[in-house]
Amino acid sequence: MSIINVEDLPVRTVGPVTYRIVSAGPVMMLYLIVPPNTNLPEHKHENFQMGYVLSGSGSLTIGRKQAKVSQGMAYTISENVPHGLQTNSEPLELLDVYYPPKSDRL
Amino acid sequence: MSIINVEDLPVRTVGPVTYRIVSAGPVMMLYLIVPPNTNLPEHKHENFQMGYVLSGSGSLTIGRKQAKVSQGMAYTISENVPHGLQTNSEPLELLDVYYPPKSDRL
Repeated sequence: MSIINVEDLPVRTVGPVTYRIVSAGPVMMLYLIVPPNTNLPEHKHENFQMGYVLSGSGSLTIGRKQAKVSQGMAYTISENVPHGLQTNSEPLELLDVYYPPKSDRL
Repeated sequence: MSIINVEDLPVRTVGPVTYRIVSAGPVMMLYLIVPPNTNLPEHKHENFQMGYVLSGSGSLTIGRKQAKVSQGMAYTISENVPHGLQTNSEPLELLDVYYPPKSDRL
């Protein structure tokens, strides 16, 4: 167990996204920053995913559903459902949770 | 899958704590508000738990470790490890994640 300041964690990158690994235990939690005006094309994976928007805004597509997201909004993405994200003119700061942990983020 | 505004979710209570269920899927996510000057005595459960502090501050005890927590800090609590929380003079706003889902919060 641990109590940490997320800003102190090592910064990693995947494409245009920077992230920090908050937990890689039984459940993975990532803290992510998606840059402004960024399109993360639709993709899918076998991990259940959910998240919470800490700041910024964007447009999130999950399956056939599309919605604007901003601070205080949350989302769940069932296993193998395609999803994509487009940010607006500010960075989008997210917490993302994966089960099982997403091995390609380790 | 869903995209929601957490504030729109039904408010539940457990003791002095109010919470909203963001996800009760494979992994549970709760949005919690712990009132000011509140002591949540040490307790333990068989669920893995982790969380992120959205606002406020307090003192978190996990096992033999005690630390002040505030916005941007995160914690992980292994299964069956005792943990407790004392808030300061402002509400503590948290995201908590449980695996498996904590059935007594449903």
